[in-house]
Amino acid sequence: MSRTPLKIAVAGLGTVGGGTVQLLHDHAPLLAARAGRPLSLVAVAALVKPDALPLDGVPFFADARVMARDCDYDVLVELIGGADGIALEVVKTALGRGRDVVTANKAMIAHHGMDLARLAESTGANMGFEASVGGGIPIIKSLREGLAGNGVTTVMGILNGTCNYILTTMRDQGRDFADVLAEAQALGYAEADPSFDIDGIDTAHKLAILASLAFAMPINLDGVACEGIRHVSALDIRYADELGYRIKLLGVASLAEGKVETRVYPAMVPLSFPLAHVSGPFNAIVTEGDFVGRTVLEGRGAGARPTASAVVADLMDLACGRKMPMFGVAVDRLRPLPESSSEAHRSAYYIRLMVKDQPGVFADIAAALRDEKVSMEQIIQRGRAPEETVPVVMTVHETDEASMLKAVDRIRKLPAVTDLRLIRIESL
Amino acid sequence: MSRTPLKIAVAGLGTVGGGTVQLLHDHAPLLAARAGRPLSLVAVAALVKPDALPLDGVPFFADARVMARDCDYDVLVELIGGADGIALEVVKTALGRGRDVVTANKAMIAHHGMDLARLAESTGANMGFEASVGGGIPIIKSLREGLAGNGVTTVMGILNGTCNYILTTMRDQGRDFADVLAEAQALGYAEADPSFDIDGIDTAHKLAILASLAFAMPINLDGVACEGIRHVSALDIRYADELGYRIKLLGVASLAEGKVETRVYPAMVPLSFPLAHVSGPFNAIVTEGDFVGRTVLEGRGAGARPTASAVVADLMDLACGRKMPMFGVAVDRLRPLPESSSEAHRSAYYIRLMVKDQPGVFADIAAALRDEKVSMEQIIQRGRAPEETVPVVMTVHETDEASMLKAVDRIRKLPAVTDLRLIRIESL
Repeated sequence: MSRTPLKIAVAGLGTVGGGTVQLLHDHAPLLAARAGRPLSLVAVAALVKPDALPLDGVPFFADARVMARDCDYDVLVELIGGADGIALEVVKTALGRGRDVVTANKAMIAHHGMDLARLAESTGANMGFEASVGGGIPIIKSLREGLAGNGVTTVMGILNGTCNYILTTMRDQGRDFADVLAEAQALGYAEADPSFDIDGIDTAHKLAILASLAFAMPINLDGVACEGIRHVSALDIRYADELGYRIKLLGVASLAEGKVETRVYPAMVPLSFPLAHVSGPFNAIVTEGDFVGRTVLEGRGAGARPTASAVVADLMDLACGRKMPMFGVAVDRLRPLPESSSEAHRSAYYIRLMVKDQPGVFADIAAALRDEKVSMEQIIQRGRAPEETVPVVMTVHETDEASMLKAVDRIRKLPAVTDLRLIRIESL
Repeated sequence: MSRTPLKIAVAGLGTVGGGTVQLLHDHAPLLAARAGRPLSLVAVAALVKPDALPLDGVPFFADARVMARDCDYDVLVELIGGADGIALEVVKTALGRGRDVVTANKAMIAHHGMDLARLAESTGANMGFEASVGGGIPIIKSLREGLAGNGVTTVMGILNGTCNYILTTMRDQGRDFADVLAEAQALGYAEADPSFDIDGIDTAHKLAILASLAFAMPINLDGVACEGIRHVSALDIRYADELGYRIKLLGVASLAEGKVETRVYPAMVPLSFPLAHVSGPFNAIVTEGDFVGRTVLEGRGAGARPTASAVVADLMDLACGRKMPMFGVAVDRLRPLPESSSEAHRSAYYIRLMVKDQPGVFADIAAALRDEKVSMEQIIQRGRAPEETVPVVMTVHETDEASMLKAVDRIRKLPAVTDLRLIRIESL
C-alpha cells in the first residue's frame, strides 16, 4: 500500500465536523496503521474557526466554496448540511474536479443523489455517505456489500433519534407530545423548527436512500408517503402499553411482486418486534433478505462522535482504495420500480375513538366495519359515563387499507363520534 | 469494470456448500448486475455429488485436493470444515497458487489464521471469512471496515446457535439440559458429539477471530478462557428468571489499560441488556467503540442460506476488486497484547448453594463473604425444610474475581454446603 497521505478537506465544523476533526486527531496513529497510510487533514472551512478543535497548522477557509475550488485535497468531507446551497455547491465542485466526497447529508443525497452519482461517475470520483443514515451504524456498507448476495424484500427502521426520544419519553413519563417536544427543544435535542424531524421528513430522506440501496432502484423521495408523530397522544401510548405494543416512528420500504412501497408512519409494534426495545437516541434497521433472513443493526443514530465514526469509515475505504459506485451499481443500472398502491397494503390496525357514551354507538361502529369486511379483534371501553365523551379503542385483524379507510370514513361521520385516530399495527 | 467472470470453485457440498451453490444459481443475474461481471461456478468437489443441487455442466471432483491443485479458478470456496486435514490442505494449495480463498471455517481460522494470512500476503492472494462468525451477520466487515475509525474496547456476543437454542428451550419449557440436548441431537440441531458447541469451543474460535479484528492483535486461541453450558441447570434458569435475568453463553473480549481479556462463559444478563432478547438460533454481537458507542448486530448465526449469504458477500467483494489484508492490516502489523489477569476481573455474581437447612449456615456464609470483602446484594431461601437440603441463592455486588473465588472456596468447604454454582452477572 502507498504511504502517501490521504489529503482531507473538511467543510463545516459544527457538531459532526467537530467530531470528525477530533477523531482524525485522536486516532491518527490507529488510522494510519489500519489504512497503511496517514489520513491527513489539509484544510477546513467554516463561517467561524472554533477554538476548541485541534486545528493547529491546518489552513482555515471562511468560504467552503473557495476551499473546494482551490485547495489540493483527495477527499472533500461535506458536513455543512442542507439539501442545496453551499453544501451542494462544494460537493459538485469537488466531484467536478474528480476528487472524492464523503458526506453525512441525507437531505442532499435524497434530493440530488442521482445527479451527484452521475457527476461522480463522469469524473471517476467516489462518494461515501455512510453517515447519512443511522449515525454510526454501518448500515450503508451492510446493505451494499455485506448483504449483497440477497434479494432484499424489506428494509425498515427507527431512523430519527429525536422522534424516538420524544416517543420514549412520552411513554416513560406519561407526558403529552407538546410538553416533551418543548423540553427536547430546550435541551437542544430538537430543533427550534422541529418539523423536519417530527413530521417524518428526515426519516423519509433516510428511507429513500435505504430503499435505493436495498432494491437497486433510483432514489424516489416523492414516492415516500410520510406521516409524522404530531398526532400521537399520551392516551394512545397508554392504550398501546395496555395492549402490549410500543409506538415507534418507522420508515418501511418493501418490495413484493415487483412493486415497491415506501412509507413513514407511527406504528404500533408488539413487544416481540425487533424494534420494540430500541429506545431514546438509538436507531435500528431491520433488513429481510431472501437468503440471510432477518438482520437487525442497532446503534446511536446521531451525535458528534457516532456520526464521525461513520464519516471516517468512508474515509478509510477511500484510503484503502476500496471504491465502488455510490449505490452499488452504476446509476444507469438502477431500475425504477412501480409503486404498489397503498390501498392494497394489508395491515392490522388500532383505532381510538372519542365517543359520546350513548346506546347504539357500538352497533353503528360494528356495522361500518362489517360492511367493509373489516374483522374486529377486540374493543375496549373502560368505565361508563352516560352522555359524556369517552375513549373507545379497537383493534382489527389484517385488512387492506382501502377497506379500512372506507370503514373509518363512515365511523368518523357517526354523530356520536367526536374524534378518531388510526394507527397501523406492524408485524414482520 | 471488467466483464470477465469471477471463476469460483466450491470445495464441500454439505449444508453451507449446498446453500452457496443454490445462491449462486438463484441470484446469478442479480449478482452479475451488482458486481458488474458474472459470478461463475467452474468446479465443485465433494465425496458424493448431490442430486438436488443445480450443478448441470459444472465439472465435479471427488477429491477437493485435485480440484484445488489442477483446476483454473479465481477463488476457492472452502466449505469442508475442520481445522486441519483436507480443508487446510486445499486452502494452502489455493493460496500458494496465488488464488483467493473464501471460507466459513472458524476452527481453521482460529488455529491457522496467522499462517494463512502470511501465506496469502506472500502470494498476493486474498482470503475472506465473513461466514466464519455470526452466520449471515456482516460482523467481520463491520469490525474491519464499518467501525475502523474506533478504538474498540469490547466485543461480545452470543456466537453459538446450538447453545442459545438449548438455553432458550430450557427456559421456555422449564426442562433440564440433558433432556433438551438429547432432543436437539435428535432434531439435528446439535451434533452427535456436542462437545464442540456446548463446551464453548466453537464460541472460543469465533471470539478469538473477533478479538483479533477488534484489537488488531494476532489470533490467540490459547488465551481464551472457556467454560460451556453443561453445568447450567433448570434450577439456575428459574432463579435467573425470578431475579430478572437471562442465562446466555457469551464470548467476551475486552481491552482495558492495554491488556486484553477473552473469555467464554454462561452469564446472567439483565433483561435490559442488549443480548437478553436474542433467542433460539439467532446470534448477536455487541461492539463498544470509543467514538461510535454501542452497536448491536443480530441475525441468523448458522444454516445453509444465512451462511451462504456471508460466503457470497465475500465473493462479491472479490468480484468488485475490494481487497484488503485478512485482518485489516498486514500480519506483521498485528501487535500481541498482554493478557489481563482474570483474577483482577470485576463482576457481580450469582451464587446458588445446596445447603442443609440448619441454624448458623447463613452466618458462616456471610462471614466468608465479609472476610474477602465481597458485598452481598441479596439472599433468597424459599421455604423452610429443617435438616433437608435446600437451594439458597445469593447475588453479590461487583467484586474482583480473586476475592470471589476465595470466598467461594471457603463456602464450598462448609459442612452444610453440598453444592455450589457460581455464575457471573454481566453488565455493560
